[in-house]
Amino acid sequence: MRVPEAALAAIRRVGVIGTGAMGGGVVQSLVRAGVATCARDIRAEAQAAAERHGAVPCGSPAELARACDAIILLVVDADQIETVLFGADGAAGALEPGAIVVASSTVDPAFPAALAPRLAAAGIALLDAPVSGGPAKAAAGTMTMMVSGDPAALQRMRAILEAITGTLFAVGPRAGDASAFKIVNNLLAAANLAASAEAMVMAARAGLDPRQVVDVVNASSGGSWMFADRMARVLAGDYSPRAATKILTKDVGIAAAFAQRLGVDAPFARAAHAAFLDALAAGHGDEDDAIIVKRAADRAGLKWK
Amino acid sequence: MRVPEAALAAIRRVGVIGTGAMGGGVVQSLVRAGVATCARDIRAEAQAAAERHGAVPCGSPAELARACDAIILLVVDADQIETVLFGADGAAGALEPGAIVVASSTVDPAFPAALAPRLAAAGIALLDAPVSGGPAKAAAGTMTMMVSGDPAALQRMRAILEAITGTLFAVGPRAGDASAFKIVNNLLAAANLAASAEAMVMAARAGLDPRQVVDVVNASSGGSWMFADRMARVLAGDYSPRAATKILTKDVGIAAAFAQRLGVDAPFARAAHAAFLDALAAGHGDEDDAIIVKRAADRAGLKWK
Repeated sequence: MRVPEAALAAIRRVGVIGTGAMGGGVVQSLVRAGVATCARDIRAEAQAAAERHGAVPCGSPAELARACDAIILLVVDADQIETVLFGADGAAGALEPGAIVVASSTVDPAFPAALAPRLAAAGIALLDAPVSGGPAKAAAGTMTMMVSGDPAALQRMRAILEAITGTLFAVGPRAGDASAFKIVNNLLAAANLAASAEAMVMAARAGLDPRQVVDVVNASSGGSWMFADRMARVLAGDYSPRAATKILTKDVGIAAAFAQRLGVDAPFARAAHAAFLDALAAGHGDEDDAIIVKRAADRAGLKWK
Repeated sequence: MRVPEAALAAIRRVGVIGTGAMGGGVVQSLVRAGVATCARDIRAEAQAAAERHGAVPCGSPAELARACDAIILLVVDADQIETVLFGADGAAGALEPGAIVVASSTVDPAFPAALAPRLAAAGIALLDAPVSGGPAKAAAGTMTMMVSGDPAALQRMRAILEAITGTLFAVGPRAGDASAFKIVNNLLAAANLAASAEAMVMAARAGLDPRQVVDVVNASSGGSWMFADRMARVLAGDYSPRAATKILTKDVGIAAAFAQRLGVDAPFARAAHAAFLDALAAGHGDEDDAIIVKRAADRAGLKWK
């Protein structure tokens, strides 16, 4: 979907910082939508890929910021956001007043809530805008985005955000709320997956055919998005990382801390966090998170492919 | 779907013991399929309803057993199966050798595994055949059934079972295996629902709109069959029992015990069991199991409709 001319007049150029899996996809969607796009990644190969997709490469976050009215951050976590905004050659000091920062990494909701006033002091608006759907959907422009924060900034950016997403949930004016939606969703994703691992191992221990268990559960009340998606990988024995274990481990850790701050007892966040940390400790952090099924089987002394 | 004449010649008459919500639906499906059907329920109103749907009412399990070649048990639990088969005026002593018992209550897999040889000693075959989908699907003939046990008995019954189900998973010759599939599925259903309650309460505590949370999760990786089905009831504030809390409490208790016997660490079964027991202790056993969201909110001191 191409962005209307009027919307492009309001935002001359968009920069993407962090052009790995998700950010690289977003670059492709921006270019396809007719948006003048700049790209910055600390890894030369990621930045070169963005350039091949039609973005202008930049030597630092500051250089990118000087060229853009809006920047989309798709770095890994809050520490990296802090670095690319406020570190050496950071973007924050180089953005003009009136610029917009779209923070799309999955972070603790407290982070964008605290970031918004820091940026506002320099006349910069923050959109708290986590995304989901994976790299393929990011590249196709069909990923999901939750967005909250400054309403005027959202209005200015909306046509561009709609061009690079399949579903855009606008969830209000408070930076932090969109991240809270994301964390709540990812808590459920992590819990449903870790519970799936427990159930698959029980079934295998009881001598049931894992393939038949997957068929039955997918057709029954125990089914979930994660079960359907990840058990297909488990049955194939394919743990190449489409979603690395370390990512959901981080997210469910944030969920557990968030629950504690909210004063909500969260046994499922704790149990899922423990299961993911265990897989991480066993050296599976860079493999697909479907591997927690194999890890649970290993712990139960079961052979598993 | 009507049962072919050849299949009806192999089974003259089918009896249903336990003609409440699910069993009453099965009676309707059997009659519609052209199967001569007998019915027995200890509650006069349930038996009268079965009679209105076209079944021949019987005064006891033994009386029903004398009239039938196959009986389908849809009583509540293993204790009730024990009573209707081996108690006063029980069915087991009244069945002819060659008869078939189809046990469709959700029970610990150890129960049908032990029941099969007891019945076999009297020449009676057991089909371990739990069902799912709820009363409406049972009445429409579209419920799901998992079945394991005596292959010859399954062959004789198959056309009739297919007539009263939408999906029939034949999972092998061992009585107990079908129940294991059911327990594994229901563990996931219970865990996904209890995790949903935790997530909904976190979201509400964080000030998010529950309706928007449901929209986001249903469109994202945190979605599950139970989340979609039960959160609709939660948003409507409708806890009239389509699936009473006490049922899934029982099932997840069985799952926890099953895991322990298998030597599988099962933190999700334990956490879900605790959440359901808490709802039961708060007096919600006969309300819909969606109420565990409201119960979790009550515990967190949140107002909830």
